Amino acid sequence: MTVSRTICLGFLVVIAVGTILLMMPFANSAGIWNDPIVSLFTSASAVCVTGLVVADTGTDFSFWGQLLILLLTQIGGLGYMTTTTFLILLTGKRFDLRHKRAIQQALDRPGISGSSNIIRSIVATTLIFEVTGMLLLLPVFVKDSGWQRGIWLAIFHSVSAWNNSGFSLFSDSFIRYQSSALLIFTISALVILGGIGYQVILEMFFWLHARWNGKHETLTFSLGFKVATSTTIALIILGIIAFSLVELRVPERFGSLSSYERFLIALFQSVSTRTAGFNSIDIYKMSNAGLFIVIALMFIGASPGGTGGGIKTATLRVLTSCTKSILQGKEEVIIYERKVSNSLIFKATGVLIGSVGTVIISTVIISITDPNLPFIQILFEVVSAFATVGLSTGITAGLSSLGKIILIITMYIGRVGILLLMSSIFGDPRPTQIHYPEESLLVG
Amino acid sequence: MTVSRTICLGFLVVIAVGTILLMMPFANSAGIWNDPIVSLFTSASAVCVTGLVVADTGTDFSFWGQLLILLLTQIGGLGYMTTTTFLILLTGKRFDLRHKRAIQQALDRPGISGSSNIIRSIVATTLIFEVTGMLLLLPVFVKDSGWQRGIWLAIFHSVSAWNNSGFSLFSDSFIRYQSSALLIFTISALVILGGIGYQVILEMFFWLHARWNGKHETLTFSLGFKVATSTTIALIILGIIAFSLVELRVPERFGSLSSYERFLIALFQSVSTRTAGFNSIDIYKMSNAGLFIVIALMFIGASPGGTGGGIKTATLRVLTSCTKSILQGKEEVIIYERKVSNSLIFKATGVLIGSVGTVIISTVIISITDPNLPFIQILFEVVSAFATVGLSTGITAGLSSLGKIILIITMYIGRVGILLLMSSIFGDPRPTQIHYPEESLLVG
Ligand SMILES: [K+]
Ligand SMILES: [K+]
Repeated sequence: MTVSRTICLGFLVVIAVGTILLMMPFANSAGIWNDPIVSLFTSASAVCVTGLVVADTGTDFSFWGQLLILLLTQIGGLGYMTTTTFLILLTGKRFDLRHKRAIQQALDRPGISGSSNIIRSIVATTLIFEVTGMLLLLPVFVKDSGWQRGIWLAIFHSVSAWNNSGFSLFSDSFIRYQSSALLIFTISALVILGGIGYQVILEMFFWLHARWNGKHETLTFSLGFKVATSTTIALIILGIIAFSLVELRVPERFGSLSSYERFLIALFQSVSTRTAGFNSIDIYKMSNAGLFIVIALMFIGASPGGTGGGIKTATLRVLTSCTKSILQGKEEVIIYERKVSNSLIFKATGVLIGSVGTVIISTVIISITDPNLPFIQILFEVVSAFATVGLSTGITAGLSSLGKIILIITMYIGRVGILLLMSSIFGDPRPTQIHYPEESLLVG
Repeated sequence: MTVSRTICLGFLVVIAVGTILLMMPFANSAGIWNDPIVSLFTSASAVCVTGLVVADTGTDFSFWGQLLILLLTQIGGLGYMTTTTFLILLTGKRFDLRHKRAIQQALDRPGISGSSNIIRSIVATTLIFEVTGMLLLLPVFVKDSGWQRGIWLAIFHSVSAWNNSGFSLFSDSFIRYQSSALLIFTISALVILGGIGYQVILEMFFWLHARWNGKHETLTFSLGFKVATSTTIALIILGIIAFSLVELRVPERFGSLSSYERFLIALFQSVSTRTAGFNSIDIYKMSNAGLFIVIALMFIGASPGGTGGGIKTATLRVLTSCTKSILQGKEEVIIYERKVSNSLIFKATGVLIGSVGTVIISTVIISITDPNLPFIQILFEVVSAFATVGLSTGITAGLSSLGKIILIITMYIGRVGILLLMSSIFGDPRPTQIHYPEESLLVG
C-alpha cells in the first residue's frame, strides 16, 4: 500500500472507531445513545483537530466522553505531526509521497538512527509541552473551579491547545478569560509551538543547547525553520494590527476594556485564528470585514510538520516569493538565498488550486442544502472546517444533515491534504519519458 | 518610458478626459452638470469596459452622453485588445513587458510587416463584427422601438457586446429579451468572439481561408488558440450546467418558461457572466449558491488578447495543468503536447496571488466603508469590478463615495492587470547574476 493511502485510511479508521465509541451511552452525560451524525461529526472534528462542534463538549458528553474526545485529538494531532515530519525529512531527497521505502531510506540519514527514535522524540516533546502548559494553567482553573475540576480543565485545555484542536469545555471558549494574561499567554504559546512544526522546535532546541554549552560556532538554520518562524511572526503581527483596526475599535463592545486588555484579545485572536480555533470574543458579533480577515487567516493556517491546518505558511511563502520573482523579472524563485525548485512551486500551486476548489465546491453545496443562511457564515464555516480551525459564527449545530456531512468531508480533506488524498485515490503515476517542445502563452 | 508605464498612463489619461467630458451639461439628459464621482465612475467603467453603473445609462445621460460612453468603451476595448495582442506576439520570444524595442522587433517577424498593419487588422475585424452584429440586432429593436431608436439601440448594444462592456440602454439589461433567440445568439456570439482574443480569430480566419481555397494540408493551431477555445467551451458548458442545476430549477421564478427558454437563459448567463456582464435574469434574486458560482466564473474571465477581463482562461489552464502534473508526479507541465515554461508558471501564480490579494483588500475596505451591506453583495461587486464584468446585485449606486472610489481603483487594477501595474510602478528590475543553492520545503 502506498504511503498516501496508509495515511488517508489511517485517519478514516480512527474516525470510525471514535464514532462508534462516542455513540455509546457511557460517552453521554445523560447515559443515552448519542446520535450517529453527532458522533461522526465529533469524532471527525476531534481526529482532524478541527474543534467544530454540533454538541456542547462540556455538558452533552460525560467525563468519559470528554476523555475520549481528548484521546482522539491527541491521536489525530500526534499522528499528523509524525507523518508530516517524516514527509519533511523526505524532502531532503527528491520529494515523493508514494514510496514507503524512500521514507525508510530518509530515516537512515546521518544523525537520525531510525523511525522509532523520531516518534519517541515527538511524543516526548508533546508530553513536555503539554505538562508545562497544564502546570501553568492550573492556578487559573483551580482558583475558579477547585482542585478536581481545575486539574481536568488544565489537562484538557493544555492538550487541546498543543494539538491546535480548539475543543473547549466552556461553551463560550475563552471569552470569560479574555483578560487573564497567564491563560492567554500560556494557550497562545502552546498553540504557536504546536503549530510551528516539530522540525522548528528541534532546531530551536539544538540552538539553545549549543548556546547553553557555550558553543559559539554558527549554527545554520534550515530553510524550513526560517520560513516557518518569519512567516508565523509576520502573520501574528498582521493579525494583531488587523483585529485592532477593524474589530476592536467598536466602542459599544470594547470601550470598557483597557488598551492592554484589547491587546490581549487581538494577540489571542490573531494566534488562535490561523488554526487553533479558540476565541476570546464573540465570533458571531464580528463585522463582515473582520469575518473576512479571519477567513483569509484561517485559510493560510499553520506551518508544515505541526498540528495545525490550512494551506500552510510555507505554501504561502513560496507563492508570494514566486509573485515577487516575476515582478522583479527573475527566472528563479529565491527565499533566504536558497533557490526553490520547480516541483516545489508546482506543488504549492497545486495545494492552492486544490484547496480553493474544495472550499468553492463545499460552499456551493452547503449554500444549496442550507439556502437561508447568510453567505459569509457558510463560507466562514467551510474555511474553518477545511483549515481545521473550528471557529464558527454559530451555525454548525443548526446545519441540515447533508450540510453536516459536507462539513465532515471538508474537515477530512483539509486534514489529510487535497494532494495526498488525490494521489492516494489515483495511485502511482505512470512515468513518462516523452519530452515536448516549449510554447508560450499569455496569462493574466 | 517603459511599455507597462505607457499602458497604465494611457488608460488613466483616457479615463480623465472621459470624466471631464461626461461632467459637462451636454452629456446629461436634463442638461445639467453631472456629479464628479458619477462621471469618474462612468468614465472608468466605460474605458475599463466594466459596465458597472451608478447612473442609468439610458435615462440619466443624453444621446451625446451615451455616444461618449460608447466611444470610451470602443477606445478602451480596442486599446486593450491591441496592447495585449502585441504582448502575445512578444511571447514568441522571451517574455518581457518592459522594452518597447522588443515589441518593434516582434513586429518584424516574418508574416507581420509592422505594427500599423496589426492595428489596422484589429480595427477592421472589430468593425466587421460590430456591423454584422448591428445588422442582426436591427430587426429585434426596430420591431419594438421604430427605426430611429432601433438603429441606435442596435449600434450601441453591438459595440457594447463586442467590447464585452456590458453597458445597456435598458435599465434591466436584457431581461425583457430573455426569450428572443436572435438577440441572445447574436449578443452571445459577439461576446464570445470579442472575448476570445484577436489571435484566435486570426487563426480561425486563416483556417477557414485555407479550407475555402481547398488547401487540405494540416494547419497547425497555436497553443494559445487551443487553450483559449477549449477552455472557453468547457467553461460555457460548465456554466450552463451550473445555472440549470442551481438557479433555473426554482419553479416560482422559472416554472412558466419552456425548457428551450430556460436553455437560452442558462446559455446567455453562462456566456455573459465571465466578462460581458449583461444579464437576462435578475441578479439580485439569485440564491447564494448561484451568486457564488457567478463570482467564480467572473474571476476566471475571458481569454488573453480579447476585450474581456478576469485572470483569463490561459492562467486558469496553466494553474490546473500544474496541479495535474504534480498529482501525476511529473516534473514538467504539459498542455497539448507542449511544455509550459517555468516563467509562465511563475507568472500565472503571480497573476492569481495578485488578483486574490486585490479582491481581498478591496472587499475588506468596502466592508468597512459600507458595513451594513450583506457580504456576498460586496464580494460580488468587487469581483465584478476587478474582472471588468459589470454584473451587480444592485448596490453600486448606493455605495458610499469612498466605496465607489475603491471600486473605481479595483476596475482600473483589474483592467491593466496587477502585474503590469506593479512593474510600471517599480520600473525595470535589476538583473542579478548570483545563483543560490536549492533547498526544499514541505508545502500544503
Ligand atoms: K482547530
Ligand atoms: K463588462
